[in-house]
Formats: sequence, C-alpha cells, structure tokens
Amino acid sequence: MKGHALKDVTVKLVGVAMGREPAETVIRNVRLVNVHTAEILERMDIAIVCGRVALVGDASHTIGEGTRVVEADGMYATPGFMDGHIHVESSMMNVREYARTVIPHGTTAIYPDPHEIANVLGKEGVRFMIDDAKATPLKVFTVMPSCVPAVPAFEDAGATITPEDVAEFMALDGVCGLGEMMNFPGVLGGDPDIHRELYATLDREKTITGHYSMPETGQGLNAYIASGIRCCHESVRREDALAKMRLGMYAQLREGSAWRDLAEVIKSVTERRIDTRFATLISDDTHPDTLLSLGHMDHIVRRAVSEGVDPITAVQMATLNVAQCYGMDRDLGSIAPGRCADILLLADLARVDVRKVFIDGELVAEDGKLVVEIERAVYPDFVKNTCHLKRPLSEADFRVPAPEGSGTSVRTRVIEIIEARVGTYAREIDMPVRDGHVPADLSHDIVKLAVVERHKNTGTMGRGFVKGFRLKGGAVASTVAHDAHNLMIVGTNDADMALAGNTLAGCGGGMVAVRDGRVLALLPLPIAGLLSEEEAPAIAEKVVELDAAWKELGCDLESPFMTMALLPLAVLPELRLTNRGLIDTVNYRFTELFV
Amino acid sequence: MKGHALKDVTVKLVGVAMGREPAETVIRNVRLVNVHTAEILERMDIAIVCGRVALVGDASHTIGEGTRVVEADGMYATPGFMDGHIHVESSMMNVREYARTVIPHGTTAIYPDPHEIANVLGKEGVRFMIDDAKATPLKVFTVMPSCVPAVPAFEDAGATITPEDVAEFMALDGVCGLGEMMNFPGVLGGDPDIHRELYATLDREKTITGHYSMPETGQGLNAYIASGIRCCHESVRREDALAKMRLGMYAQLREGSAWRDLAEVIKSVTERRIDTRFATLISDDTHPDTLLSLGHMDHIVRRAVSEGVDPITAVQMATLNVAQCYGMDRDLGSIAPGRCADILLLADLARVDVRKVFIDGELVAEDGKLVVEIERAVYPDFVKNTCHLKRPLSEADFRVPAPEGSGTSVRTRVIEIIEARVGTYAREIDMPVRDGHVPADLSHDIVKLAVVERHKNTGTMGRGFVKGFRLKGGAVASTVAHDAHNLMIVGTNDADMALAGNTLAGCGGGMVAVRDGRVLALLPLPIAGLLSEEEAPAIAEKVVELDAAWKELGCDLESPFMTMALLPLAVLPELRLTNRGLIDTVNYRFTELFV
Repeated sequence: MKGHALKDVTVKLVGVAMGREPAETVIRNVRLVNVHTAEILERMDIAIVCGRVALVGDASHTIGEGTRVVEADGMYATPGFMDGHIHVESSMMNVREYARTVIPHGTTAIYPDPHEIANVLGKEGVRFMIDDAKATPLKVFTVMPSCVPAVPAFEDAGATITPEDVAEFMALDGVCGLGEMMNFPGVLGGDPDIHRELYATLDREKTITGHYSMPETGQGLNAYIASGIRCCHESVRREDALAKMRLGMYAQLREGSAWRDLAEVIKSVTERRIDTRFATLISDDTHPDTLLSLGHMDHIVRRAVSEGVDPITAVQMATLNVAQCYGMDRDLGSIAPGRCADILLLADLARVDVRKVFIDGELVAEDGKLVVEIERAVYPDFVKNTCHLKRPLSEADFRVPAPEGSGTSVRTRVIEIIEARVGTYAREIDMPVRDGHVPADLSHDIVKLAVVERHKNTGTMGRGFVKGFRLKGGAVASTVAHDAHNLMIVGTNDADMALAGNTLAGCGGGMVAVRDGRVLALLPLPIAGLLSEEEAPAIAEKVVELDAAWKELGCDLESPFMTMALLPLAVLPELRLTNRGLIDTVNYRFTELFV
Repeated sequence: MKGHALKDVTVKLVGVAMGREPAETVIRNVRLVNVHTAEILERMDIAIVCGRVALVGDASHTIGEGTRVVEADGMYATPGFMDGHIHVESSMMNVREYARTVIPHGTTAIYPDPHEIANVLGKEGVRFMIDDAKATPLKVFTVMPSCVPAVPAFEDAGATITPEDVAEFMALDGVCGLGEMMNFPGVLGGDPDIHRELYATLDREKTITGHYSMPETGQGLNAYIASGIRCCHESVRREDALAKMRLGMYAQLREGSAWRDLAEVIKSVTERRIDTRFATLISDDTHPDTLLSLGHMDHIVRRAVSEGVDPITAVQMATLNVAQCYGMDRDLGSIAPGRCADILLLADLARVDVRKVFIDGELVAEDGKLVVEIERAVYPDFVKNTCHLKRPLSEADFRVPAPEGSGTSVRTRVIEIIEARVGTYAREIDMPVRDGHVPADLSHDIVKLAVVERHKNTGTMGRGFVKGFRLKGGAVASTVAHDAHNLMIVGTNDADMALAGNTLAGCGGGMVAVRDGRVLALLPLPIAGLLSEEEAPAIAEKVVELDAAWKELGCDLESPFMTMALLPLAVLPELRLTNRGLIDTVNYRFTELFV
C-alpha cells in the first residue's frame, strides 16, 4: 500500500476529525455516492489528512490555516475506480504511461497480471513491472503469473515461472495474489505443481484469481472454486456469471477492447433482483486507442449503466466489491473515515464524467489531464534486449519444402482465422507446389505464417499457412504473440517476411508491416518486445499507421494484429502454430503440416 | 480455525467435486438459502469432505461407498449462524456449557469478548477461555479485551490488560481482534496507550471491535471509525445504526436479554431501501433463561424477520455479513465450494426452525439436542479461587457513621435506579441518623450498598445508599458486578449483608439472597466468581429461585440482579459506587457520601 498505513496515523486522523488540528484537504459540498448503503447523500464534506479520510459529513471544524479547500459545488464523489483484472501489456504502454493514461479516467488502483512480460523475462520481468509502478501514483496490486509458459510442452517461451517462484513472490508486499489460473485442467485434475501454487497463495492469505472459460458450471466449476479460486473474468454468457456468483465466486464482468462481454454478462444481474456484491467490472485487455477514445473504468461503469444497472450499483462494482474481493476493504473501495482518500469528483453520475481524481488525498488529475509529474524512465538493458535470433533471417528460412515426391499440389493443413473471434478452423487444402516448394496462394487467400523462437537464440522456427487475412502483398510481423511472444511473421513472400522479421529483431521487437522491401509502418516495442517507451498518443498514432498499412496490403479485418497475436496460443481451438510446429489443439498434439 | 485449512485440502476437494473419490457426507435435496445472491435455490445437494464443501448442486456423482447421505427432503439450508459480539460470561455458563446450549439453536461460531473474566484473572483468564473453547465444536474467535479495568482510576479490578498484553495476544491464532473499545474518550483524545492497542491489532491485520454509545454521530463517530474500529454494537436508535453503516462501519444490531434494541435499530434498514451488507445481528449479553426459552441467533434472526426484514436478508446478517466484517468470508459465512461445511437445515425459514446443525461437516445437533459429546472439565484451581477478602465480613463493616455533629438527619447522596434502564439518578436526600450511624431507610425505599474489593485482600470497601429496589428485608449479594466484579452487597440490615457477602466468599463467588440469617437462594459461580460449573437448566433453575427470593424480599423489578450488576460501572450516569467510593460519573470524579 502506498501512503501511510492506517496503524501509523490513527492519532492524526482522530485529531483532525475532532477539530484539534486542521485537515490537509477538505473537499466541500459533494453529493456522496455512498457505496456502503447504496445511497446518495447531499451536501457532504470530506476531510483528509495523511492521505486518508478523517471525516465525512460537515467538515467545517477541520478547516484551519493551511487547509486546502476544494469546492466540489455539488459534484458527485465516488471512491476511486479499481480494475480487478488487467494486463497492462495489452496497452503496449509501459506502466508509467499506462498510469498517465488511465488515472484521468478515474482509475486509482489496478490488479495487473503481468503474464505477458513474464513469458519473456520470467520473474525478473514481474519484478520490473512492480518496481516501475512505484514511480506512479496509481496503486498497483500485482498478482503473480501462475501459468508461464501457458502450454509448456508445445512452445518455448523466454522463461518459466515455477511454484517456488510463486512462493517467493507471495512474500512480497507488492504482490496481492496469484494471477489468472488458466490451467483449469491442472486444477481439476489435482496437478501437484498447480496445487502447490494455490497452496503458496492461500498460505499467505492472498487472493487466487481465476480463468475458467468452460461453459460447464457443474462439477468443474465447483471443483475450481473449491480449490480456493476467488474470482473469474472469463464469463461470456449471463448464466456463467450467475453460476459463479451463486457459488460465492466474484464474477468479474469484462469489457475489454476485443472481449466486449458486458452486454451479455451484465444480464446476470439486470434480469433478476439478486444481491450484486459478488459482481465486479474489469477490463482484462485494453488497446491504446480504446483507452484514449473511450476511457478505462469510467467507460466500463458507463457501459454498465447503459445496460440498465443502477449507477450506484455500477459504482459499487468498480469500487467496494473489488476491494472486498481482494480483502482490502479496510483501506480501499469506499469513502469513509480511515480509508485511503482515493476519490473521484464527477460532474454527472450516469455519464461517469470524471472531473477530478484524488489518490491518497492528492489531486492527481483534473478535467481529463494528469496534474502531477510521473518521471520518465531510462529502462535497463535487460528488459530491452529480448530479441535474440540465432542469425538474421533470410528468404531461405521461409521456404517450405514440399514432401518428397509431391506432384503439382500437396494436401496441407491450413489455419483459417475467423474475423473478430478467437477461434480458428483447421482446414485441409490442396496447395500448389512450385520448384519443390509450397508458396503462398493468394488466389485462395492463403499466406505463409512463421513463428521464430526469439528468446534464447535456439534458431527453432515453426512454419505454416494461414487463410483469411486477405493480404495481397508484403508481410507483417509482431513480437506480441501469445503467450510465448516469439517473433511471428505473416507474409505473401519470403523476402518481405525476412525483412519484417529482421526489422523487429533490430529494434527489440514490436509490430511492423512491409511491402516490396520497404517498411510501411513500424511500432517499436523495445521493452520485452511488448511495451513501448513512447507516450500513449504516439503509440496510438503508430497503431493507426499500422492499421492503414494492413489495409494497404489488402487486409480490412478489424484489429488484425489482435487476431494474429493469438495464432500461436495453443489453448485455443482448432489449429495453432508455435516455434515448435503445428499443433492440433482439439486433440492437444503436434501435427504434420502436410496430410 | 478448527478443522482443515483450505490450503491443505484443495486436491481432496477437487477430487470429490469431480467424482474421482466419494464425498464423506452429502446433504441431499435442500432449498438453498444462497446468501451470495440472496436467492433461494431449489433441489440442491451439498457434497462435503474434510469438513469443507466440495460441491453445491447435483452431487449424485460424489456419492460412493462410505458416503453418508443426509436426506434433507426440501428443508432450507443456511450457513451456520455467527454471533459477532458476545460475552459468554453473561450466560453464567462456562464456554463448554454455553456451546452445548447454543449449537442446537444453529450457532456455529461466536466472537466472544471475555472482558468479564479478564477483569478477574487478566490475560490468563482470556487464555483459559480460549483453551476451554477448544474442547467444543463451536468456533470461538476470541477478541482480546481492550479496556481492563474499564475505569482504571476509580476501582480495583483483579487484573489489568496492558497494550503489551494486547500485542502479545494478537499473535495468537485463536485471537481474531480487539475487544469492544469502550474507552471512546481515549480513542477520541488520542490517548497513547489506547492507540497502541489499536496499532497492535491493525499491525496483525485483525479486527478492532467497537463500543460507541454516544448519540453524537458527527465528529466523534467519524474520529472513532477513522481510528480503524470496524464494528459497533452500541446503537440504540435507528439513526445511530444508519450513521455507522453510512460511514462504512458494521452496525451490529443487538437483541440481548436485557438490551433489546432490535425493534428500534432494525428500522435503519426496514424504513429505507439501503444495501444491508454492513448490518449484522448480535446478542452481546444473554442470560441462561433467554437461551433456554427463546434461543440464541435463531431467536435474533426470527426477531429480525418479525420486524419486517426479508428472511434471506436476515440470514445474511447472521452469516455472510459477519464473516465479511471479520475478513473471514473465505472460510465462513456461506455455503459454497471450499468453505467450511457449517450448515443448518431449517424446517421453516421465517420461523427459523433449526432441525439439524453441521459444523465442519459433522452433524452436531439435531431437533434441538446436541448429538456429540463435549467432555466435562475439571477446572484448574487458579480460575476457581478468586474471592480473596482480607477477613470475613462483620456487621460492623457495613455501618455508615454519620459525620461529626450530625443531628437527626444528614443530607446524603443516594443512587436512584431506574427500572429496565442502565442509567441512574444522583439524588440528595435527608437520611435519618441513629446512634451516630446512618441506617437503611425502608420507608423511603433506600437500602445500603457496599462494594468490597475481593481480588487481592486489600480490605478496601465502598459504602453508599441506593433507592428503588423496594426491598423490605434481607440482603442480596453478587460477584457479577461490572466491570471489576468485586463483591457487591445490597441490603436492609448489616447482619444479612455480612451473611450474604460471606456466603459468596465461601463458595468462590456467585449470587445470593438472604433474610434473617438464612440463605433463601444461592447460585454459586465458582469460576472467577462469574461462571457456573453446572448445566444450563440447573443454572436457569437457580436463577428462577433467586428471582423468587428477590420477590420474597419485596423487589418486583425485572432482572434486578442485572440492574444491580451495573451499579459499580463508572462509565454510566449519574452516580456509581466502587470499592474506592462514590463516583459522580457526570463529572468523572469521586464525591462524598454526605453533602
């Protein structure tokens, strides 16, 4: 916890509440959104000292010499918003820039699971994220990644998180729990390593966060919750969320950039009059353009209201309920004596129009702008040199030799993507053979796909074909490639594929689009090949340039980099490619490229 | 926590939920009172292993060889009831007998504050209570008494609890927080010793329980809550309870034997549609006859329902809300996978008709009877020899000499009691003088009152007069005399007063009524002069005999021993008597008996 621990300042708080000494800050005349009783209370003041609330009510006696009085003039006061499940890496911002971006939207605390960077840099990556967050006023309660790599047998990530690492990190103050437990088969099957991670977390009385994405809400969900997993953001149907809440699990209702589940899952609470204390709102993955154009938790609260949730209830779902989920409600989640003075002033409640943001009693944002300085960092080398290819890529690396004795065509396993969906189809298609090799077949919308190990110079590389991107030329590449984040390249020709790959290797990773030997657009992500060093608007601008370049290459899908980023993720159906090769994810086994 | 820690049994729970191994117990076909969502769910089963719930729903696949199947036949299942604030000593039962009595009423956990015994035996008394509770299936989460003695400067208790003692006991597993912080002037004034106790509790992330009995809900209540005090049972007006909940404090709505506040304070939630998660139901002080005739938490939940609270909401107030107040909802307070299998089966919900009680999955009570054995104890000497008078009392000890030069009467300060109220009036009355002494004046309903130090043979003794008991003869005495629990004697004549006092001193304390040199009724309380070694019905029977004896002596007040027990409590208005003398509790100073 940043700021003063309550135990250290009780005398001070009492002194201010009783009027013996002046408050540091008094916010005067708010409409208090009381999340305890779900009421709005008119004409309330909030007296603050040592970063905590000393008094809520009439604070006139706490105003003395040196007290800063903030006239709220009847604006709504809510607790600061808390995002109970978020991967900062999805924003492609480093955590300082992320904080700069989300704080003006009313976010005062996040519970990030840094499992993307952990796949690249292991526990040192997690430590880096924790330390970097300390430079910001944002309260960052990290959960320790639980499943790194995501699918150990099928790919080579940059690092492994062991149960011992989990136990080590649970002892850290900055770590408040275990990251999303994606390995539900391991949980349900009683896998000893997985249950050792659960043990290490429960042993410290910290919170295990979940990822239960199956539609089965009977024995599997019961088993999953029985193992101590307290919350889950993977509900996509209203009945999933309802089943979880009924079983005493916090249902984290998600509205991310790509996963916009809220319209459906919020029906778990709007369709029936249930107690909503086990419902929270979270973002999971948010792209920079979403953060800049729509906002963060303010946007999600607004969305909940627009789906018919009472505004006070929606605010509870982003404040008190989150704090209770993590057992932190003694410090966070409400505006009450003794609690941290993390407070928002809203010009309009239903529109969630955040005008002022206070963290630990300090005004940190006003009218959409950060008003405190977050120092820019010079990041250490170890987080920036993470693209380690055995040698530069050449055209020859991308050549796919046809099997001995092939004729003019060969039956080939092709991944077919589905626009705006995370799944793929496993297709078997006759591909042309030319000079003993199998090239891309643009006439059938099939291009080449390569995943190049980039962490440890192993030189391993998976090659395959993907259908559906509608590329007419050039190539694209990205080091954001879940979850191992190897170097992934999609292209129409080998030369552009090599150029795309080498361009990223040269700048420490990122996203690039090339054509005919020329770079069309490049977003360098030098930190772990995942995060930018630039400011949010600059990142967003480059994302726009990349989108334009995709279109120039012929692809008009929505967020094609996002679809591409999931092609190596071997937990999703039906066919995937990693640096080790093609994987049949229906039967969980490697498969041959040619039938 | 009794039973298995969740961290130790996750693999086992998962194995049962998935049907790989049989449940130990399955409760089949309940109407589940779901406190998470506030719904009733029909036809649910509950599978249990290792004392915890493995699955809620259809548990047919968990039934195997050796599984005990309990047919609920549609009875309501609720979580076990939890009493968030209770003094076991008020029942005059030792904790084993208390457990025997309350478990069949559905109480599965209590949060006792053993501050009565602490006033007699200090921290060793607390340790004794903690240890004795281990012999019972009842979950006993002790809070460490915070204010022993209650009013240090004005009386001599048997022991003192220091901030160091508090810090020492906070390290114990069996201690879950700090007992009711009655010294609100100390809290509000920033008293260093008091705030050291708060610090010691917050430092261990345990719960500070409150006692804020002032009607002021502005700066004082804010200051009190700001110091980290999480709950309070001292609301007597609906607006007190509402103010506390609005400020994020758990309002513990009380229905004790003598303090029947529920009818009033429940209006804080029934008169308006507020979120009720910060409301809990508690008993505070309950006499044996109440427990035997009305019940315990079942009675209080029933009372809440009869006052218009929805039955599911009322159950939440005695289960989930209590667990959340103490930060124990990961283990307690609801029927959910992973939680302790503390479960009640009710034949009727609104009538709270408890038929079966399970604790940690074991059937412990059925149809109002305990079905497990709680071993009877042979209590150690140190808890039983606590009446230490300097010498036997004689008639002369009770003589009150009139001041030098008094005439036939002398203006005297007299305590006037008020039936069924805790307050008293400070009266100035002309008392007759006879042979240089001031006797009782039965014609004006004024009798003698004496408080004799009984802990450390000091021989100190306070003498005074009390009006309102309507005694016509004899004397009564008690070692239940808040909070120092010295030997208190009320009587019409000195001989009977000496007999009453000596009778109690001879049996280690208790309550007695005598007349004309004969004992009319005696309830020995040999443990600390507060607790019986007998069974509840025997205690209740003796209480009835004592009530009859009071009546025989002329007193027809309701619970006169209760009114009497508060006469030395110098935190209550207006005039009190301790072993050190008469105290003006309006101005907090000693005062002379004669004006």
